[in-house]
Amino acid sequence: MVTVTVWNEYRHEKESEEVADVYPDGIHEVIADGLRDAGYEVNTATLDEPEHGLTEAVLDETDVLTWWGHKAHDEVSDEIAARVVERVRDGMGLLVLHSGHYSKPFKRLMGTSCSLKWREAGEKERVWTVEPSHPITDGLPESFEVPRAEMYGEHFDIPAPDELVFTSWFEGGEVFRSGCCYTRGKGRIFYFRPGHETYPIYEQDEIRTVLDNAVEWAAPGDGPDPFYGNADPLEDLD
Amino acid sequence: MVTVTVWNEYRHEKESEEVADVYPDGIHEVIADGLRDAGYEVNTATLDEPEHGLTEAVLDETDVLTWWGHKAHDEVSDEIAARVVERVRDGMGLLVLHSGHYSKPFKRLMGTSCSLKWREAGEKERVWTVEPSHPITDGLPESFEVPRAEMYGEHFDIPAPDELVFTSWFEGGEVFRSGCCYTRGKGRIFYFRPGHETYPIYEQDEIRTVLDNAVEWAAPGDGPDPFYGNADPLEDLD
Amino acid sequence: MVTVTVWNEYRHEKESEEVADVYPDGIHEVIADGLRDAGYEVNTATLDEPEHGLTEAVLDETDVLTWWGHKAHDEVSDEIAARVVERVRDGMGLLVLHSGHYSKPFKRLMGTSCSLKWREAGEKERVWTVEPSHPITDGLPESFEVPRAEMYGEHFDIPAPDELVFTSWFEGGEVFRSGCCYTRGKGRIFYFRPGHETYPIYEQDEIRTVLDNAVEWAAPGDGPDPFYGNADPLEDLD
Amino acid sequence: MVTVTVWNEYRHEKESEEVADVYPDGIHEVIADGLRDAGYEVNTATLDEPEHGLTEAVLDETDVLTWWGHKAHDEVSDEIAARVVERVRDGMGLLVLHSGHYSKPFKRLMGTSCSLKWREAGEKERVWTVEPSHPITDGLPESFEVPRAEMYGEHFDIPAPDELVFTSWFEGGEVFRSGCCYTRGKGRIFYFRPGHETYPIYEQDEIRTVLDNAVEWAAPGDGPDPFYGNADPLEDLD
Repeated sequence: MVTVTVWNEYRHEKESEEVADVYPDGIHEVIADGLRDAGYEVNTATLDEPEHGLTEAVLDETDVLTWWGHKAHDEVSDEIAARVVERVRDGMGLLVLHSGHYSKPFKRLMGTSCSLKWREAGEKERVWTVEPSHPITDGLPESFEVPRAEMYGEHFDIPAPDELVFTSWFEGGEVFRSGCCYTRGKGRIFYFRPGHETYPIYEQDEIRTVLDNAVEWAAPGDGPDPFYGNADPLEDLD
Repeated sequence: MVTVTVWNEYRHEKESEEVADVYPDGIHEVIADGLRDAGYEVNTATLDEPEHGLTEAVLDETDVLTWWGHKAHDEVSDEIAARVVERVRDGMGLLVLHSGHYSKPFKRLMGTSCSLKWREAGEKERVWTVEPSHPITDGLPESFEVPRAEMYGEHFDIPAPDELVFTSWFEGGEVFRSGCCYTRGKGRIFYFRPGHETYPIYEQDEIRTVLDNAVEWAAPGDGPDPFYGNADPLEDLD
Repeated sequence: MVTVTVWNEYRHEKESEEVADVYPDGIHEVIADGLRDAGYEVNTATLDEPEHGLTEAVLDETDVLTWWGHKAHDEVSDEIAARVVERVRDGMGLLVLHSGHYSKPFKRLMGTSCSLKWREAGEKERVWTVEPSHPITDGLPESFEVPRAEMYGEHFDIPAPDELVFTSWFEGGEVFRSGCCYTRGKGRIFYFRPGHETYPIYEQDEIRTVLDNAVEWAAPGDGPDPFYGNADPLEDLD
Repeated sequence: MVTVTVWNEYRHEKESEEVADVYPDGIHEVIADGLRDAGYEVNTATLDEPEHGLTEAVLDETDVLTWWGHKAHDEVSDEIAARVVERVRDGMGLLVLHSGHYSKPFKRLMGTSCSLKWREAGEKERVWTVEPSHPITDGLPESFEVPRAEMYGEHFDIPAPDELVFTSWFEGGEVFRSGCCYTRGKGRIFYFRPGHETYPIYEQDEIRTVLDNAVEWAAPGDGPDPFYGNADPLEDLD
């Protein structure tokens, strides 16, 4: 069975009544509930726990890590960020959600600034599938609306995705590559744009379906562990 | 359960004693046996059957089609080739094996000449994994040898693969992109180089593992069926 | 100097007063004028000329071919379509414009249906650059508007582009991958969405800049001509 | 005119007689000579200069930076490495040569370990073109030999290249993706494998041709400078 650790910064919910109204137990609990309903083994971890809840022991048991952070990216220690990056390279799946685009692990894995345009106006987003053959689209309609969303707009400063699954339309006139797949080492990474602390986006059916599918897609496989370093020849040299 | 149709030209085996010694019941039976052992529902079809064994009814029941052809590509009717192409676009998986690079369905799906260098000298091939995160590499070592192989060498005139999984080394000095993933419409395509009529390559464990994994990877998903054509606006137009 | 052949179906202009008002000498002349201003050597060719104006002699002198067609794709002979495809594989650049997505050469080079959503409502399109490092974006703003456009919407049934340069936003709620780069054989292909027979889109500055840049990008290089066929070993075989 | 800064660690040459025999003035001077012959404006910079010779003023004048390092990657300061990364994202081209795969700038731009197999046995390498449409292959044969090379073998732990231009064959039985193109922000990056401190590889004609072409390919363009941050809507919001 695939084991998921749902990580959340978990600050907005404790500091803002508006956010607490939407996510009273924290965004992580809503995401975790959705994944539990899909049959995954799910644990949660948050910034203010020791080692941000991401001890070696926790990561040993984690197949896929989901990451939500926004206002405290800098408080994630370099050591834990490096630990997450290392785990991804070793095969752990990583789902980076919404404002997690600016998190330390994602920026280090991408090698770019991960900058974008943004606007908080509660506008409409429409998410279009551009790769209907991709397993992350299983069970989805070809497009769906997020009624009230924070806008993220291009240019999104990321490496060209290995697979571009979704592109968003925004009421205010922007577009955004909102579902992006990457491989780094043996690990698979999926960035998914929708999701905000003041809108109940993680309770929306289509969003839950995407996260369910993405966990399955990102779960570690059983490919070879390459040898790196000084290697003897496999053929006779002249 | 995933249903596979193993298609074979099935001419060499009937015309050459050397080939019949290696594949007495046809290459398709050896491939089919391997896939049955992996738990798939497997049927076979061959060129000289009516409609080449690929009737609409057969394809209705086919999740993944594997294709082996070599000396009679031109005898595949344009109609059946078009039918296969259409099915792939609609979601059927396609595994194109070895000399199938020159088959009508593959060339039409690629849009290139699919030309390459070749040599029959029974030389050694070593298949290297270049994408160990890919599910088609599950259970494989990071490289494996095919003791006696027909050489295929670059330049291989294909579109740049969506995912390059394997690259082969040849004793005679060539390299080859030997495991290539593509998406066309809703269908997934995997080209796999090893396999020849005069060598028992399809009985080799690593080759069987690749084919088992590739069938699972290429099996149709449940993504959206996009609407194409004249579309009403989803938003009010000024 | 790069030589461009601007091909146009050239039927709408002769049959519709509305179109003739916008493009009195044909769409090809407006496109050709823009490219001439950029310093290219430019000729034109149209459907109703012998061999559709695309004789072997013409193509011998063509570095980059631009293609505009809409209502008469089926009247392009299979032979000439095959000739164009062959030339692209041999290194000729190809710019496929707007409704050319359904042309024979483009469909054969892509291997997909090239289907899409469409709507003629004179709505606003905004073209966003998603790859500002790409030479086709030289001199452009990060987005620009096409005031009145035919809508093309996803899903666009194409292979995932080798490079995705532009994505369009439409007033009616759709998005579209509107600038797509491909390589087929030695030839480079650029699909560019904007452009319609009833709007003066090819007179718009940003559109002209894109076409100028795309011609330069698609012009043939001087890479190796690979040998295909039976090859002697480069190393001693055991 | 394109201005190139050729950076070299420049330690082997001062510490090893064997290396000094091959590159008496340093590897950088041989690389620089080749690029000067191609008509570029070329300067050099080395590790032991103040700020490693990569001051803001020097980088202001640099269109393309080439990077050769091997034994002292750790002595490159984090600050200068970050400065180089930032410049690449802002559009400066970067050519990473041979053992530069383990340099700080390259690892940060890739987000992976950049590990590989290696062996110093003076064996033969054969570099094959796998993308003959790419401008970096202009003027090259479809393959060429490096008579005596250090072996680098797969798995090379890099993100899948945006464009894979070359793949190497090694006498000892390995293959390697030896010419890899990437985009990060507005900058273009080319990794090129051949080149070693004890072999006169940078004096070989084909190698010089590759570097000349790669500089031209990586030189900054004139694409848009995207705005990042809080953006006003371009359309009226309901």
